[in-house]
Amino acid sequence: MTETLIAPPGLKGVVVADTEIGEVRGAEGFFHYREHDAARLAGERGFEEIWHLLVDGHLPDPAELDAFTAEVAPLRALPPELADLVPVVAGSGQERDLMPRLRTCLSQLGAVEAFAPVWGADRSSVRADVLRVAAVVPTLLAALHRTRQGLDPVPPDPDLSAGANWVRMVTGETPSVEVERAIGTYLGLTVDHGFNASTFTARVITSAGADVVAAVCGAIGSFTGPLHGGAPDRALDALDEIGTPDRVEPWVREQVAAGGRIMGFGHGVYTTEDPRARVLRGIAAEHGGELYEFAAATEHTVLATLAELKPGRRLDVNVEFWAGVVMEQCGLPRSMFTPTFTCARVVGWGAHILEQAAGTKIYRPLARYTGPEPCR
Amino acid sequence: MTETLIAPPGLKGVVVADTEIGEVRGAEGFFHYREHDAARLAGERGFEEIWHLLVDGHLPDPAELDAFTAEVAPLRALPPELADLVPVVAGSGQERDLMPRLRTCLSQLGAVEAFAPVWGADRSSVRADVLRVAAVVPTLLAALHRTRQGLDPVPPDPDLSAGANWVRMVTGETPSVEVERAIGTYLGLTVDHGFNASTFTARVITSAGADVVAAVCGAIGSFTGPLHGGAPDRALDALDEIGTPDRVEPWVREQVAAGGRIMGFGHGVYTTEDPRARVLRGIAAEHGGELYEFAAATEHTVLATLAELKPGRRLDVNVEFWAGVVMEQCGLPRSMFTPTFTCARVVGWGAHILEQAAGTKIYRPLARYTGPEPCR
Repeated sequence: MTETLIAPPGLKGVVVADTEIGEVRGAEGFFHYREHDAARLAGERGFEEIWHLLVDGHLPDPAELDAFTAEVAPLRALPPELADLVPVVAGSGQERDLMPRLRTCLSQLGAVEAFAPVWGADRSSVRADVLRVAAVVPTLLAALHRTRQGLDPVPPDPDLSAGANWVRMVTGETPSVEVERAIGTYLGLTVDHGFNASTFTARVITSAGADVVAAVCGAIGSFTGPLHGGAPDRALDALDEIGTPDRVEPWVREQVAAGGRIMGFGHGVYTTEDPRARVLRGIAAEHGGELYEFAAATEHTVLATLAELKPGRRLDVNVEFWAGVVMEQCGLPRSMFTPTFTCARVVGWGAHILEQAAGTKIYRPLARYTGPEPCR
Repeated sequence: MTETLIAPPGLKGVVVADTEIGEVRGAEGFFHYREHDAARLAGERGFEEIWHLLVDGHLPDPAELDAFTAEVAPLRALPPELADLVPVVAGSGQERDLMPRLRTCLSQLGAVEAFAPVWGADRSSVRADVLRVAAVVPTLLAALHRTRQGLDPVPPDPDLSAGANWVRMVTGETPSVEVERAIGTYLGLTVDHGFNASTFTARVITSAGADVVAAVCGAIGSFTGPLHGGAPDRALDALDEIGTPDRVEPWVREQVAAGGRIMGFGHGVYTTEDPRARVLRGIAAEHGGELYEFAAATEHTVLATLAELKPGRRLDVNVEFWAGVVMEQCGLPRSMFTPTFTCARVVGWGAHILEQAAGTKIYRPLARYTGPEPCR
């Protein structure tokens, strides 16, 4: 009999896996992909380079990058088997509920196309499946978005960067260089971020030997949980609610008095500034304009007011706040903020699935029965 | 900073939750739902009684049972929002791939009907959602099965027991009392079984605050993993492969020599006979017939041969073996064996989701970075 160990609630502080994909150093305000500073990479490298780094373990040289780009480009196309499904699934309107509809499409892709269980599969087959899923997610999300508005889907353009392609598939317009760069940086910046709940979910499902689609559908489920984080649209809603710079201080006081969270402030892992927020603030500042000025003033006033109301407690702005500002500046509709995040994060899930698939141990912890003694 | 704890691979032997739903005592060959012997309950009580026990915490008195039955009956109907979806999703043929298609339908149900995130929801709303999902799963599975064969779905009959209703929705025929009892007992017997990978997955997703559908879609993913177990059709395939009683011994020797697993034998938790196998063997014996005789002879010969080939290693028959025999005797097609299991297990997932939703702690463990030191 193995000795039993009682884990802290939520497995807090418990190491459940080894990973070479990356790490978040919360106290240092630093995170990295493989051995590279992620915040720096996101500004300097294209999305495919970062994707290659996560999946294949190193930054590609020019020939590798060409090969990788050529490999993933055809995988972006809308799978013909889903052509009938998208209109049935899409619904109508502008509601912010694309994530379950994306899950529906992916789930069905797992039924109609061959996705082998990772158990017993070799690495190259799992790698091919994680690339297929990550490549098709933006196309599916954009197709659902446009279809529900009565517009034709815009097919992916293999000559565009990931950021430009995404904006074009959503809006129908090829974006400016500034917008392309802003969205591309955002995508690169949010590919992976430690062992969050959706990543852990993907690894648990993979550990049972299931296929890549099963793992990603589960990860999407955790991702939609309000405790997961990752809702930049809600940070923007808060800015709308505040309305004008002079309203920030009374608004914060009201929120704190009511015991509510201040959307866009605070993070479970960083005890210092979130490096993603720093990079995105810089991008927002380059774009400038009224929204940037208002957001910067809001950040300043919120922090000053919180410092007064909660002395000694450090609460920084988080990634959602500045991500929301950047996406709004770039003209993405708010219903597409979380989907944009998903286009990036599915690459990280894929890397974790691939790493987990090489392991052999199913996650099968114990529960402790605390009810009445059973009658025999 | 919380102290870091390195968990054993797969969280083996680690208690990650308290539960009052039940427990598996592997060394005793005993498992229970709440404080009741599960194997005994399955033979003596109807499926709705066991469902009520898991969800509401106690066996219902007659008035409670009437109320519960009346509550879940209308929830079994095929949701009208999915009427257009089922034919698009079902595909065609008899392949054993209904599980991802079930997930597709459920996923979409989560998009078109109101399923609130469990975070911040009160218990009665989460309870209502777990009942809705568990009630609709058999209807969806049977509708997918019949649609793909060009047959009309058979709507649920509120006057039938869960077992009879299931067989009727699948085959179109109201079953005999013997078949009804056999399938009813199987369903009651497999509602819950400790903290397996799919149950854990459902709880992880719930811990992020996501809705019930998100948790069940994730659980289905883990459930489809070959390491999860739960494939009674494969045990029957093995019987087919063996063919005749005189082939059992050479077949076992071939399998062991080739290092393969003997489908239907051995279990990760029980070190003695699986009580579910015992109950199901009894049911198979009551039905009798050639298949029973062959299965019993196979069990005997496999165990005798394994005792010779692997002395000192106890390998008992598991639930899949006799579950497969019982379902085959009852005339269910093999493509519906795992779906039948799912009709039961979704009730257990629901109970765990409801219990987890009352907790507040998101499962967010750590990974240990083992790659090269990052450049700063």
